[in-house]
Amino acid sequence: MMLPTGEDVRRARDRLAGRVRETPLVPAPELGERAGGEVWLKAENLQAEGSFKFRGATNHMLVLQEEGWRGGVVTASSGNHGRSVSRAARELGWPAVVVMPEDAPAVKVEACRRLGARVILHGTTSTARAELAERLSREQGLAFVHSHDDAHVVAGQGTVALEIMERLPSCRVILAPVGGGGLAAGISLAAGELHPGVEVWGVEPEGSACMYRSLQAGEPVTLDSVSTVADGLRARRPGSIPFALARRYLKGVLLVTEEEILATMRYLARECHLVVEPSGAVAAAALWAGKLDLRGRVAVAVLSGGNVDPALLCRVIGEGV
Amino acid sequence: MMLPTGEDVRRARDRLAGRVRETPLVPAPELGERAGGEVWLKAENLQAEGSFKFRGATNHMLVLQEEGWRGGVVTASSGNHGRSVSRAARELGWPAVVVMPEDAPAVKVEACRRLGARVILHGTTSTARAELAERLSREQGLAFVHSHDDAHVVAGQGTVALEIMERLPSCRVILAPVGGGGLAAGISLAAGELHPGVEVWGVEPEGSACMYRSLQAGEPVTLDSVSTVADGLRARRPGSIPFALARRYLKGVLLVTEEEILATMRYLARECHLVVEPSGAVAAAALWAGKLDLRGRVAVAVLSGGNVDPALLCRVIGEGV
Repeated sequence: MMLPTGEDVRRARDRLAGRVRETPLVPAPELGERAGGEVWLKAENLQAEGSFKFRGATNHMLVLQEEGWRGGVVTASSGNHGRSVSRAARELGWPAVVVMPEDAPAVKVEACRRLGARVILHGTTSTARAELAERLSREQGLAFVHSHDDAHVVAGQGTVALEIMERLPSCRVILAPVGGGGLAAGISLAAGELHPGVEVWGVEPEGSACMYRSLQAGEPVTLDSVSTVADGLRARRPGSIPFALARRYLKGVLLVTEEEILATMRYLARECHLVVEPSGAVAAAALWAGKLDLRGRVAVAVLSGGNVDPALLCRVIGEGV
Repeated sequence: MMLPTGEDVRRARDRLAGRVRETPLVPAPELGERAGGEVWLKAENLQAEGSFKFRGATNHMLVLQEEGWRGGVVTASSGNHGRSVSRAARELGWPAVVVMPEDAPAVKVEACRRLGARVILHGTTSTARAELAERLSREQGLAFVHSHDDAHVVAGQGTVALEIMERLPSCRVILAPVGGGGLAAGISLAAGELHPGVEVWGVEPEGSACMYRSLQAGEPVTLDSVSTVADGLRARRPGSIPFALARRYLKGVLLVTEEEILATMRYLARECHLVVEPSGAVAAAALWAGKLDLRGRVAVAVLSGGNVDPALLCRVIGEGV
């Protein structure tokens, strides 16, 4: 297993310049009061295609291009990663195939098709999707772009940390959601190697805490089942690369409840005027719920994405009206 | 009548540094496609207290402070301006009185009280509110902070244009909503005197088009009645200072329908992940509805604020789910 290095993140930053958006840092004074420090939000919900996934997907494909690859790509995804791969492929003029579950919401399928990708609906489990995607990769000569268990993808996600530290050098704590672990791993790698004074925490829903359990066990464990409204974080097992990096660089994993996630989505929309998806709210939810005492420090919670089902968003915002 | 100058806007920018947020520019490629150019959104919905009003209110009060004023302030407002005056007063340690209509929504009254202001509910018309506020100003020795017909307030709002041009020097068109006219006047003043290559358009709801009508008439006219979902833009007559500046510097006023405003709010929340109030959506709505052909130019639509009633927001987002 080849682990990415801090230097890989730095190179990803250069490679992605002008291709991904530098997303803003938005102050969240109410979260600061609750957590006993100064809190900013890294608004990756304002990233191209609505999530941080565009960074890792683009970095992976630009590395392929540097290595002379001129073929297409394939990936397995039920959501933001597929959309980001479709967009990155369109920008490079490459064909893209996205394997999605048979029960994928029409809106997510449409988002990929609109970007020119070929969408194949197959099975309902991530294992079935991954198997088909890998078979297509072999048979059709397409490069496989993993959503999180990949050195270039992780290095791409780590660029979030470099942007944060460049704009807010006083930052001492970063919180990021954990699904398969790519984002938190990339950020903790970048902080650990390039900004060692910065503490990075992962945050998981209580009902989908594979990284928390794996770090406790000292090795990647597979959960029997997961259940959370945060559809982007329903991983049963962390990626090997993310786990190895998290073990080395992550300060720890905080857990939040479903109620805390939804209340934080509501706060972010009503008070901060930012639309986030449930997965995008979990890092801020840890501060909202007082799961970490900042002791006066400056912290950034990464809002990882904004692609939320309008019906759910509406229900969340309307509550208590 | 003392009109502010470009130099006043520049001084306001220095004065406000570190006190108001520099809000981000967010790309809106779909609006660019619709309008035939490149479109960015100036996200003043992410400004402190959720609207651009905080700029003008703070500038006015900092000028008072420079002039030696140590008393309190009073204003008449039904919304964002009152909230911004309350916040600016709290930061200066001054008492603030906000005269609001008897039928003001509890949430707006609460926002001012939470910031330490004394709220007086009085009448239901803006004339009645203004009269009481001016009487309190005389009787209690409070400085009156007008919401838009004031040189320092207008200069403060104009700082929006300076931030835009600093970050996006290629910008050639700016669109801003018009209620009493303070924001559009300040922006057109700053552009006209400091960035003469930039064209500034005001945008009004069809049902509340006092600036449009006044510019046609060549003098400020008072509308018999106004009707629009954009509660921040329900002015029956433009301010004298904003009118004089608009006449000199504004390229023109575009009109949008209620349906276009709501559809744009929906687009901004669902696709751009930004919550805006109806008044905050009108400038983007002009581009969404193709009211201006950009002919390949770079344009910025100012999202003036985000303080929307959750029930309305929910209705708008949920439509067509």
